[in-house]
Amino acid sequence: MAKAKPQPPKGTRDRLPEELRKRHYVVEVIREVFQRYGFEPLETPAIERLETLSGKYGEEGDQLMFKVLRRGQPLVDGVRRAAQHLAEPGAVLEGRSGETAPGAEPLLADLGLRYDLTVPLARVIAAHQGKLPTVFKRYQIQPVWRADTPGRGRFREFYQCDVDVVGSTSEVVEAEVCAAASECLDRLGFREFALRINHRALLRALIETARIAPERETDALVAIDKLDKVGRDGVVQELRSRGIDADSAARLITLLGEDPSLSRIHEQLRDHAGGAQAVAQIEAVQQLCAGTIAEKYMRFDATLARGLGYYTGCIFEVTVPDLAGSLGGGGRYDGLIGMFSGKDVPACGFSLGLERILVVMDEQNMYPETLGRPDVAVAPIKENDLPAAFRLAQRLRGEGLKVDLRPKAFKPGKLRQYAEQQAISSVVWLEVGATDKASLWRQGEDATERDVPLELVADYLRSKR
Amino acid sequence: MAKAKPQPPKGTRDRLPEELRKRHYVVEVIREVFQRYGFEPLETPAIERLETLSGKYGEEGDQLMFKVLRRGQPLVDGVRRAAQHLAEPGAVLEGRSGETAPGAEPLLADLGLRYDLTVPLARVIAAHQGKLPTVFKRYQIQPVWRADTPGRGRFREFYQCDVDVVGSTSEVVEAEVCAAASECLDRLGFREFALRINHRALLRALIETARIAPERETDALVAIDKLDKVGRDGVVQELRSRGIDADSAARLITLLGEDPSLSRIHEQLRDHAGGAQAVAQIEAVQQLCAGTIAEKYMRFDATLARGLGYYTGCIFEVTVPDLAGSLGGGGRYDGLIGMFSGKDVPACGFSLGLERILVVMDEQNMYPETLGRPDVAVAPIKENDLPAAFRLAQRLRGEGLKVDLRPKAFKPGKLRQYAEQQAISSVVWLEVGATDKASLWRQGEDATERDVPLELVADYLRSKR
Repeated sequence: MAKAKPQPPKGTRDRLPEELRKRHYVVEVIREVFQRYGFEPLETPAIERLETLSGKYGEEGDQLMFKVLRRGQPLVDGVRRAAQHLAEPGAVLEGRSGETAPGAEPLLADLGLRYDLTVPLARVIAAHQGKLPTVFKRYQIQPVWRADTPGRGRFREFYQCDVDVVGSTSEVVEAEVCAAASECLDRLGFREFALRINHRALLRALIETARIAPERETDALVAIDKLDKVGRDGVVQELRSRGIDADSAARLITLLGEDPSLSRIHEQLRDHAGGAQAVAQIEAVQQLCAGTIAEKYMRFDATLARGLGYYTGCIFEVTVPDLAGSLGGGGRYDGLIGMFSGKDVPACGFSLGLERILVVMDEQNMYPETLGRPDVAVAPIKENDLPAAFRLAQRLRGEGLKVDLRPKAFKPGKLRQYAEQQAISSVVWLEVGATDKASLWRQGEDATERDVPLELVADYLRSKR
Repeated sequence: MAKAKPQPPKGTRDRLPEELRKRHYVVEVIREVFQRYGFEPLETPAIERLETLSGKYGEEGDQLMFKVLRRGQPLVDGVRRAAQHLAEPGAVLEGRSGETAPGAEPLLADLGLRYDLTVPLARVIAAHQGKLPTVFKRYQIQPVWRADTPGRGRFREFYQCDVDVVGSTSEVVEAEVCAAASECLDRLGFREFALRINHRALLRALIETARIAPERETDALVAIDKLDKVGRDGVVQELRSRGIDADSAARLITLLGEDPSLSRIHEQLRDHAGGAQAVAQIEAVQQLCAGTIAEKYMRFDATLARGLGYYTGCIFEVTVPDLAGSLGGGGRYDGLIGMFSGKDVPACGFSLGLERILVVMDEQNMYPETLGRPDVAVAPIKENDLPAAFRLAQRLRGEGLKVDLRPKAFKPGKLRQYAEQQAISSVVWLEVGATDKASLWRQGEDATERDVPLELVADYLRSKR
């Protein structure tokens, strides 16, 4: 057959055993914590109807969505109509595919690859009404696809790891997702992270109290978000450059003060009903989290803005020193889940950034040593003894050991070398016949091999685990 | 926002918690066995270059492949050229997209969704040469996508569950994948299955010895495969209807005999070098499997044909009573893995039919009772006591219990009802204040609730696990 280029598509990766063992470990820790918090597993198809996805992620999202070609006659018809589209002056093929101005793409494609886990959750809530509990607590760990420009740590296929509570407005929900997320990270060995908490209504109250025009809210949020990096003067400059007048900018920076603690903000917003309520909700979450693992990591941060229009209540973000960006975040988004059911459905969630967590854990070598690797590699010295090696491997497997039988003859030195490369701690080679001996070598001990009677190999290895 | 149809795409399903817990259980059992056999995990991207996939699955496969729309200018150019294609007489859009006669689809699509796990494995072997051990033992459990007509138990998105050894011609490999597959099924509770074994060269030898023309081999295989169902006369009839002459048909059925045991076939093929070698290889696998869990289930079946040209050596298939089709199968395929590297790479594997395994286990109720469900549901009687309920939930979680805190007030009867629906065995409701009491109720016991001091709830529940 012809040779073809064997690389995976741009922006995607093969996950080889070494990486995958780490990934499985992290996912299992997270899954275990989520289950202990009473979250239920959910999985949705990788492909969704294009109409389910279109218009949900803004224009950029529609552009970055992978779309799946129609099949059969619909495709033939689609090509004809798409070509007409192109021939018309002003027709755009790669344009908006939303409801008001459909481009030609919907003519050619009827499905899209999952872009996140939130829109599918909203669809599930609508599709399975009556079958799900009125308060539905789910976790979902699945890949999503975005045709983004690939870069360092940015992929076109990556996992999201979401936990959400749908159907409750109680602050207990905020506390629960914060405690669960904190516990995941703590169990994985993170000790230095901050779980920043803020509230969208508090940000809005600050902006209103500073008398910044509502249409400048996003600009103001972007500027506030930079306080940590650019300082107070920098924020004022940013506000000014975004068309906010000097008085409003000055008022906003005064409201925030030198160190915007919750009590200071509370004082400033005492007369703003929405602001006061937001403060009360943050306090409620903080009080609930007292005594949980989240207490140690949670801190109020009046400058946390967390993206654009999506959130309606408390917002969270996890940061670690020396890493730009976050390890995850979330918040309350009461307007989104009802998009398919047409009902008002409150919701609050937390998304852990699995890929980033893996990057940091890799850099800081935070994985346990064994990590699901085989306990022992087994091979015969002579090809003829392969059946005997297989029988030994089966016996060891019967004892619960993970055994990597190499199906060919090995010189002891070569087998040791292989085991070292694969980080397998023990090696057994055997020679049947006159001597009938199994020889055993373990990494990290003195390089002397020891002969062990066949029937004692399992006991010996178990004692060393 | 506008209401859209909330169903997932045709042929796909949302996996709700109840189903997913079963699925996770089965996958974990399989994964554990595979790891004990020294197989390493591998995952590949859901999307592959179209050129990687095209022409690998025959014309039907190319038709059933989901293809991903090109993006940006390449798509615009593609539509123009595809429209020209359509305008030309005889141009086919939905046609072969292989190398010799490209249709218009490659103009519109550059990626395809993974169609199986074998072509990606072959690509990985070529892409990561030098980074993988010379004998690579991997398992891979991931979904694949096929635009097949959906039907009962046939989906457009379904999981494959493959284990393969690449780089060895030893029969130990056949024994190892058969033992691993048998152990997976045995651990899942299957006791009645048969692991049928045959050999492609043995089938070829039978066909040659019966003097059936080589170009009729596929026809002969299809007919032989039906012996179980249609009997000896039926097979002769099938052979005749497929253009095989009466003498050859008679010779073939005579070679098979009444009950084609391996020793009988051995006798018949004594003078056929390829046939005799095939018999020897089957015997070697049987001998290796003696003493393993596979011994109980393995039986030679001269009529097992297992699909078309793919396999080159031993072939296997697992069947259970009362289920049409198989629970899995595999074999040696020495010509396939080298397709991207241009080298000869021997390989042998076993694919477990995860979806079918789940169907049978569902029908026969083969799952353990608890299956990762929450240990206990907790709720307050009064909304005000939610914080106290949260604190109790956190305490129980700290003790390792899986706790489903309901974030709203529940009447005890309603909470019991919820727990019954969700198959949660225990329920705790609490009322703080004057009484400060937690009340506990367990399914299956007498319906009397008992009051338990808050600090003893964890102990009580643990004692009941």
